[in-house]
Amino acid sequence: MKPNFTLRLRVFNLNCWGIPFLSKHRADRLKRLGDFLNMESFDLALLEEVWSEQDFQYLRQKLLPTYPAAHYFRSGIIGSGLCVFSKHPIQEFTQHVFTLNGYPYMIHHCDWFCGKAVGLLVLHLSGLVLNAYVTHLHAEYNRQKDIYLAHRVAQAWELAQFIHHTSKKADVVLLCGDLNLHPKDLGCRLLKEWTGLHDAYLETRDFKGSEEGCTMVPKNCYVKHQELGPFPLGIRIDYILYKAVSGLYISCKTFKTTTGHDPYSGPPFSDHEALMATLCVRHSPPQHNPSPTHGPAESSPLTSVLREAWAEVDQGMAQAHWWATMAGYAVGLGLLLLALLCALAAGGWMREAALLLWTPNVGLVLGAGAFYLFHVQEAKGLCKTRAELQHVLGRAREAQDLGPESQPALLLGQQERDRAEEQ
Amino acid sequence: MKPNFTLRLRVFNLNCWGIPFLSKHRADRLKRLGDFLNMESFDLALLEEVWSEQDFQYLRQKLLPTYPAAHYFRSGIIGSGLCVFSKHPIQEFTQHVFTLNGYPYMIHHCDWFCGKAVGLLVLHLSGLVLNAYVTHLHAEYNRQKDIYLAHRVAQAWELAQFIHHTSKKADVVLLCGDLNLHPKDLGCRLLKEWTGLHDAYLETRDFKGSEEGCTMVPKNCYVKHQELGPFPLGIRIDYILYKAVSGLYISCKTFKTTTGHDPYSGPPFSDHEALMATLCVRHSPPQHNPSPTHGPAESSPLTSVLREAWAEVDQGMAQAHWWATMAGYAVGLGLLLLALLCALAAGGWMREAALLLWTPNVGLVLGAGAFYLFHVQEAKGLCKTRAELQHVLGRAREAQDLGPESQPALLLGQQERDRAEEQ
Repeated sequence: MKPNFTLRLRVFNLNCWGIPFLSKHRADRLKRLGDFLNMESFDLALLEEVWSEQDFQYLRQKLLPTYPAAHYFRSGIIGSGLCVFSKHPIQEFTQHVFTLNGYPYMIHHCDWFCGKAVGLLVLHLSGLVLNAYVTHLHAEYNRQKDIYLAHRVAQAWELAQFIHHTSKKADVVLLCGDLNLHPKDLGCRLLKEWTGLHDAYLETRDFKGSEEGCTMVPKNCYVKHQELGPFPLGIRIDYILYKAVSGLYISCKTFKTTTGHDPYSGPPFSDHEALMATLCVRHSPPQHNPSPTHGPAESSPLTSVLREAWAEVDQGMAQAHWWATMAGYAVGLGLLLLALLCALAAGGWMREAALLLWTPNVGLVLGAGAFYLFHVQEAKGLCKTRAELQHVLGRAREAQDLGPESQPALLLGQQERDRAEEQ
Repeated sequence: MKPNFTLRLRVFNLNCWGIPFLSKHRADRLKRLGDFLNMESFDLALLEEVWSEQDFQYLRQKLLPTYPAAHYFRSGIIGSGLCVFSKHPIQEFTQHVFTLNGYPYMIHHCDWFCGKAVGLLVLHLSGLVLNAYVTHLHAEYNRQKDIYLAHRVAQAWELAQFIHHTSKKADVVLLCGDLNLHPKDLGCRLLKEWTGLHDAYLETRDFKGSEEGCTMVPKNCYVKHQELGPFPLGIRIDYILYKAVSGLYISCKTFKTTTGHDPYSGPPFSDHEALMATLCVRHSPPQHNPSPTHGPAESSPLTSVLREAWAEVDQGMAQAHWWATMAGYAVGLGLLLLALLCALAAGGWMREAALLLWTPNVGLVLGAGAFYLFHVQEAKGLCKTRAELQHVLGRAREAQDLGPESQPALLLGQQERDRAEEQ
């Protein structure tokens, strides 16, 4: 790599709101999105909520001349909705489906059926290894009484762990997606603290777009005002995050969002705003060490956010155990009632009524059984997350006890440790 | 690291056969296993089929003085059954649950309920980073007509991908576990070719143990002869696999298995045999480059095994689609019958029979619906595996077309590429 080496990376991210039969003007929006992506010729376009594989295939055909490489991440029953289009060859890809992702019986929320996941692409650009991640976390339907909070925190942790463990050899790490988390939400802080990723919107000096970088704004004709809840000006839940390692320095030269319209002031591409960033990777300037991976080194915010996450996941676990216990009682009750109905039917008393009640009772036993198994699994998943958080927290505390000199050695990931050794 | 540096690593692996209420003499076997592990003081003991968390807690207490670090990998409804005990501090751990793991309606086989997974531990030993993986793949119940073959191949690929992507910065990689794969089975070859891992049994010059390294042998009093099927002498399905990168050389000094008894010729610890290896890590001797990660560099065996895996997964996909279609028809038929029964009951004809048939019909619709959703998800999971295999296969073919000089550059993982650059 030459000493004056610079890599310029233009990245696009959009939650496409591509629900077949339900999302308005889907075909038209996709067509215009394809035209725009072709015209702009980004290095990478990362999309979420492309729920239909036909839509992906349509875009793939349309974008083929400009983006020869593409991948659709399949998972769950419906699919993860994640896909990528790249101007550069994709060296490798893989994915990780989140252990916890809502409840199958919340059919109207649908998240459980999607198999929400994180997709990883490895690209080699100008001799650098770029790990690009795309993700979409569980939606937030009610901020005041969020029954999915523990799941979203667990997903944020799993996402952070996946990035942490798969990017140890990467030179540049990029994460795009709809996190369904506000910038100061626990999951967002946890993700940033554990991975050391930087928020393009906060880092850039050249921002153009919606107020406070919001990615769901009331000006967007597809956004219902009640979706924004107590945030009438909009919410920021879609992100471009990045970091560089191995003596490299990454900065966000420009960052743009659409503002409730498409970039030509036409109808919007989606109910979310599109994000466009120009990132610049070069050697660390010797006069100033930006320490892009400072996250894990500062133990105080890390331990505090880990503690918060631990408490949230622990509460979720107690809730899961409670539901499992209740379901266990319901199974027992259902079995008792079935025995009673059998006795009534056999004795000839209220035979017809007994036969009529048979179906809902079998339904109760089977439903409560499934409910029980699901919540036992949920408790196991949360317990696993809690154990991982507890372990990292323990190590962070050890580092604090040993004094500030020992903190980096204990807290920094291997990546950062090696970088420190190299320097 | 000193030039004459040598790291000696003693590793123990056992599938413990710890099914509560079903496995014979479980408490006694666990007690004796604990005593043995304490006495031998291995660096790492990796266990599978510790299904009960109480058993893990029992071992944890018993082994605490010798193995201060331990972890139990929780997943699924029952649990992954995986746990580890380590003499050295565990720096980090995480896990990946396999996307496909049998069928929930095969209740008697139980695998689906376990959430089979791969667990990862990161240890820092003498300045080296050791990534130790422990796993347990889906069981093989009928070798002649193996309905789980596509799932096991997909699991082997997911395991290989997880190791490939999470071990890029590791100096030493160790994989222990019950793969439920014979050495020449597709999944085993795929795993070895893609990760470049070496089989301790095949590599060592000092082997003591059962004939052909078998890990389920007829001499073991807990092994039923029908379990061994067409292999009356035994089968080898448990492994210790390893590799070293970054200019290091790893060899297996000694490899032992138990032989149907515990190491003191007493009753066996489990229905599987225990594996014990002494590994030795040192700098690559300059006179001889063992190229421990030769797997991916040799394109021919890799492409051939990738092609085989692709075909197997593709066949599994066709099967999953077929089942989903059949289930779709069954749902339609069930709904028609329900409508008919409603009409009969409302019209007063055969009212009692109609009411009696209502329950099995609702059951049919719900059951077939669940069956449909499950097989759609299975098809998605297999499709994802097929896409990953196809991508790697495409790159391997490109490498072959470009001639032998270009093969390593295209085929080697980042790890190997960087190692080549460093040398």
